[in-house]
Amino acid sequence: LVSKAPNMGTTIFTVMSALATEKNAVNLGQGFPDFPCESKLLDLVDGAMREGLNQYPPMPGVAPLREAVSKKIETLYGRHYDPASEITVTAGATQAILTAILAIVHPGDEVIVLEPCYDSYVPNIELAGGVVVRVPLTPGTFRPDFDKIRAAISPQTRAILINSPHNPSGMIWSRQDMLTLQEILAPTDIVLISDEVYEHMVYAPNQHWSAAHFDGLAARAFIVSSFGKTYHVTGWKIGTVAAPAAFTAEFRKVHQFNVFTVNTPMQHALARFMADTAPYLELPAFYQRKRDLFRQGLAQTKFKLLPGEGTYFQCVDISGLDVPEKNLSEAQFCQWLTSDIGVAAIPLSAFYGNGFDQKVIRFCFAKKDETLQLALQRLARL
Amino acid sequence: LVSKAPNMGTTIFTVMSALATEKNAVNLGQGFPDFPCESKLLDLVDGAMREGLNQYPPMPGVAPLREAVSKKIETLYGRHYDPASEITVTAGATQAILTAILAIVHPGDEVIVLEPCYDSYVPNIELAGGVVVRVPLTPGTFRPDFDKIRAAISPQTRAILINSPHNPSGMIWSRQDMLTLQEILAPTDIVLISDEVYEHMVYAPNQHWSAAHFDGLAARAFIVSSFGKTYHVTGWKIGTVAAPAAFTAEFRKVHQFNVFTVNTPMQHALARFMADTAPYLELPAFYQRKRDLFRQGLAQTKFKLLPGEGTYFQCVDISGLDVPEKNLSEAQFCQWLTSDIGVAAIPLSAFYGNGFDQKVIRFCFAKKDETLQLALQRLARL
Ligand SMILES: CSCCC(=O)C(=O)O
Ligand SMILES: CSCCC(=O)C(=O)O
Repeated sequence: LVSKAPNMGTTIFTVMSALATEKNAVNLGQGFPDFPCESKLLDLVDGAMREGLNQYPPMPGVAPLREAVSKKIETLYGRHYDPASEITVTAGATQAILTAILAIVHPGDEVIVLEPCYDSYVPNIELAGGVVVRVPLTPGTFRPDFDKIRAAISPQTRAILINSPHNPSGMIWSRQDMLTLQEILAPTDIVLISDEVYEHMVYAPNQHWSAAHFDGLAARAFIVSSFGKTYHVTGWKIGTVAAPAAFTAEFRKVHQFNVFTVNTPMQHALARFMADTAPYLELPAFYQRKRDLFRQGLAQTKFKLLPGEGTYFQCVDISGLDVPEKNLSEAQFCQWLTSDIGVAAIPLSAFYGNGFDQKVIRFCFAKKDETLQLALQRLARL
Repeated sequence: LVSKAPNMGTTIFTVMSALATEKNAVNLGQGFPDFPCESKLLDLVDGAMREGLNQYPPMPGVAPLREAVSKKIETLYGRHYDPASEITVTAGATQAILTAILAIVHPGDEVIVLEPCYDSYVPNIELAGGVVVRVPLTPGTFRPDFDKIRAAISPQTRAILINSPHNPSGMIWSRQDMLTLQEILAPTDIVLISDEVYEHMVYAPNQHWSAAHFDGLAARAFIVSSFGKTYHVTGWKIGTVAAPAAFTAEFRKVHQFNVFTVNTPMQHALARFMADTAPYLELPAFYQRKRDLFRQGLAQTKFKLLPGEGTYFQCVDISGLDVPEKNLSEAQFCQWLTSDIGVAAIPLSAFYGNGFDQKVIRFCFAKKDETLQLALQRLARL
């Protein structure tokens, strides 16, 4: 067997979660909540299953869920997406992004990614035979550097991937950032893949600016979201893609021959959950409280807090810490922190192709208050 | 947007199910049951959800399910697969097959498919940049033609896809067929992708011969199976792949960046369902009764029955039928049958790249007895 990906390892999230389990550490690495979702949502899954909704749903997803998503986007971002032809339910955001890339990236096409970025983007582009063009976000602030983005665009550029609120940094693109991107892309045919899975985790005074807000971006965008992140059920693996009809048609061609379709009873449950209420509206306050609790605790330690505007991640600078072994890389530090201190975190170097090490690590604060307090107690020892 | 797949349409299963719904026809097209799964399985999902098993599972699947699958394969086919390194849970069999192909097919590699075949295989190969080499099964009998397979092999052949029990024909490869394939592949490095999703739907005196039965095949095979087909929950989208550790390692590299992982509570439920009992053992008798009921009914009509040894499909020859419009293609006939007679079926031409039309259509008999009887009443009018 000749490996197609000889240098591709195991995703850092799997590696760190396995180590956390082995060492019985508090797992603030992989991004998932340790508290339950609303029990009403479970009741709705159970109800849908008992109604017999257990066979193949329509390929693009069940109509009520596509309608609920359309309504949400229209309410929050003021753009109408036709549920029939512009919204597709996916087996999570990762599958959505790979499928979009497979659908539009021809072998040899260039695709721009802004580093640090989620660790599936680059392998996804490579699987499609695309050429990855890496552009760094501004070091230190993680803000988009539009001069560098402009310079990276070539006649071969097929697509650009953006992600706001941003994993791992927690930074959010401003309205002006989105307008500048729109202006840069205007004279091109470049497709925008906008990973907005943390759209509902945005902390005052910040606001989420979706690609859906901007005519010139929406017309060229696949907008990716995640029910798992929003409703505390990352293990259900359900997401969505909103895109203009012509883009959605290409997307579905690939989607139907990848997963074909997505879990039926859970799609119905999510649609019903979103029908009565707008449960995503409670998310900012819910997570802002956790963020504040966690930041206040970290402020008592020797970690230097980086700013955080959104997501459920908090980055810290580790360079001022007095640790037994000196000159640890971020990855080594995370291993040591997991094994010896009992708190798992993710090294930012995992989000860079060249392993760039800026002595910053990422914690996930989507945890019960007790969990955060236990982690803070352990971190206070440093 | 430059389409990567300008000629790729919508899968026939979606097209015919939509037409069946529109015309209020009995849907014997797309392959899914219209009866419920065992309620115990639903109880187990509900239980797992209430236990809080709703976050990301380990990337390759939850350990108890991988163990249950390993045990099943060992019991039925006499081969041990290590749950840790040789079994992966997938978002259905379709995702498993695409992922295996993306993992091993390099651009320009040839991949052999035996037509008629499931309609995702060819697009899957094309998405990986592979070259599709189509070999017909023997016309009329749908048996493998090993001279043709031998002749199709070249130094560029990377993989061959087989499917037994066979969709759409219902034919099963004999032990001798598998031994012959093993002998043909022995001097090569060709990877075998063995789609065995109908492994438990095999009717006496036939027997399923898995690639797992044969050392020389198992050593080079991805063996794909489906919980959706086996436990009457096609909408849950859960399958598995068993493959030697080196193959599984390559598979997981792609899998982690496609869907990452698969529905947590349903994985646990399936593992628990398989733990106490061996529910798949009841399947052959359950479906054989339905097949016999359906075949007996069809024997009273002008459809000519083709043999069927396995799967939940029954093919019929339509050439002797006296229908209002003459010279309908299989596809036109299926449309007419759905609209005017009220029974949906699938044209076999949908399983051929060149639309080969042999005047054969496929019915699915995974239906309640009442459903089959209603369909038979309608078909008797012809
Ligand atoms: C798919 S596992 C990773 C979860 C996540 O989004 C993260 O931790 O960044
Ligand atoms: C994925 S929809 C098709 C179901 C099926 O396996 C078939 O009808 O052949």
